[in-house]
Amino acid sequence: MKPKLVLMSHGHLAEELHKSAQMIMGEIDGLFTVSMLESDGLDGTRAKFSAVLEQAGGEAPVIVAADLLSGTPCNVAVQAMYEHPGLRVITGLNLPMAIEYAASDMEDVDELAEYLWDVGHNGVILVEKPQITSGEEGYED
Amino acid sequence: MKPKLVLMSHGHLAEELHKSAQMIMGEIDGLFTVSMLESDGLDGTRAKFSAVLEQAGGEAPVIVAADLLSGTPCNVAVQAMYEHPGLRVITGLNLPMAIEYAASDMEDVDELAEYLWDVGHNGVILVEKPQITSGEEGYED
Repeated sequence: MKPKLVLMSHGHLAEELHKSAQMIMGEIDGLFTVSMLESDGLDGTRAKFSAVLEQAGGEAPVIVAADLLSGTPCNVAVQAMYEHPGLRVITGLNLPMAIEYAASDMEDVDELAEYLWDVGHNGVILVEKPQITSGEEGYED
Repeated sequence: MKPKLVLMSHGHLAEELHKSAQMIMGEIDGLFTVSMLESDGLDGTRAKFSAVLEQAGGEAPVIVAADLLSGTPCNVAVQAMYEHPGLRVITGLNLPMAIEYAASDMEDVDELAEYLWDVGHNGVILVEKPQITSGEEGYED
């Protein structure tokens, strides 16, 4: 069975990234979100994450894509790795991760986590400045 | 003067990422957002982006962080590079970019674009599984 994906963020970033991915891919099976509000703090975020892990199937393999290394959402997920051997955590949550999760049918949690890391990492591109030519170069006539 | 940063996305991802960054950094000067709604299409997105470029100061240096290479928000920004020599475009928008923009005082648009690419790219990390020891290793008594 395909691992679940949990998007975790400060504020509603995770939910809106989910909606943006749906604009492109339609409904996405197996995708959950955890939004840490300012009033949640560490304990509230832990409670939200535990509830989502239950929904996702208890001990089933889960990949978390968190917004920021060392932020509270990420820390909650990393701490849970001690008790949940099927949990993997990626940081720097971006849209390519959610889109490629939707398109993938990988079932191995390590393979899928590595793949989502790769598409997220390599989806961050500094676009080259267009080369604007005069229209007179490269043509003989 | 520090270049402006425009976050561009499908749906409200850009706005929510802005709010998440504010949860961490407080108000961020010079940051704008463009949200492409399904009803906007290409022309509506172009109009929104043009309005934001005007707000950001016309020909002033601007860095766009777009959600996805080859998506409409990104394409609109890349097309604008032909007419706006001070425009740079990064894809794979994530939270580290907005946070490091807030913290930076770089004034050169190429230097800042390269820096935001770097923090976005290297902010995507696959967290290592914690090494769980028995509690009996590494101590003599």
